[in-house]
Amino acid sequence: MTTSFIRPEPPYYAVIITTRPAADLEGYEAMSARMAELGEAQPGYLGRESQTGEDGRDLVVIYYADEASITAWKAHPEHLQAQRLGRERWYSSYSVEVARVERAYAYDRD
Amino acid sequence: MTTSFIRPEPPYYAVIITTRPAADLEGYEAMSARMAELGEAQPGYLGRESQTGEDGRDLVVIYYADEASITAWKAHPEHLQAQRLGRERWYSSYSVEVARVERAYAYDRD
Repeated sequence: MTTSFIRPEPPYYAVIITTRPAADLEGYEAMSARMAELGEAQPGYLGRESQTGEDGRDLVVIYYADEASITAWKAHPEHLQAQRLGRERWYSSYSVEVARVERAYAYDRD
Repeated sequence: MTTSFIRPEPPYYAVIITTRPAADLEGYEAMSARMAELGEAQPGYLGRESQTGEDGRDLVVIYYADEASITAWKAHPEHLQAQRLGRERWYSSYSVEVARVERAYAYDRD
């Protein structure tokens, strides 16, 4: 899990992605790692939280400074290809939600 | 994982919760189940996505129709007690973000 509780003051944006894997996952892990790497390099990238369940389902939240950053990343050529492959091969279903974080609070014992 | 891709048209709200467990998790599972049950019974509850990592970290997204529902649930007496116990016992740290879902799309192969 890549994680960072350190984010700027709201408002900023969160992209919430839920995926259910299909039967054939060949090539998925490499593409997923490549997309994480590319996505982090996009302007406006703030961080991500992700967990994979025992059933292979992913829950991922990726944070960006603004909507323009999200739109630009969605239209990145290599990302578009990954999205197409995801639909054709790796995902039986997925959900993507773009949300504006309006307030945030955190607790850290130390 | 309790999941529901079936949500209303945006706008609606997402509460994104990331937690890191402390050493002593006695009572945590029972309380967590109780809070999920109570939270679902709140007016405006729309659904939730959650995954627990191998390291015990939880990533949870809970959906509500509006901010008033979230505020009411946050102030629920039994939930307040759970929040206090979470800080005192179960969590070394956590992050809570309240976000307004502005657009959403989904893919389902079947």
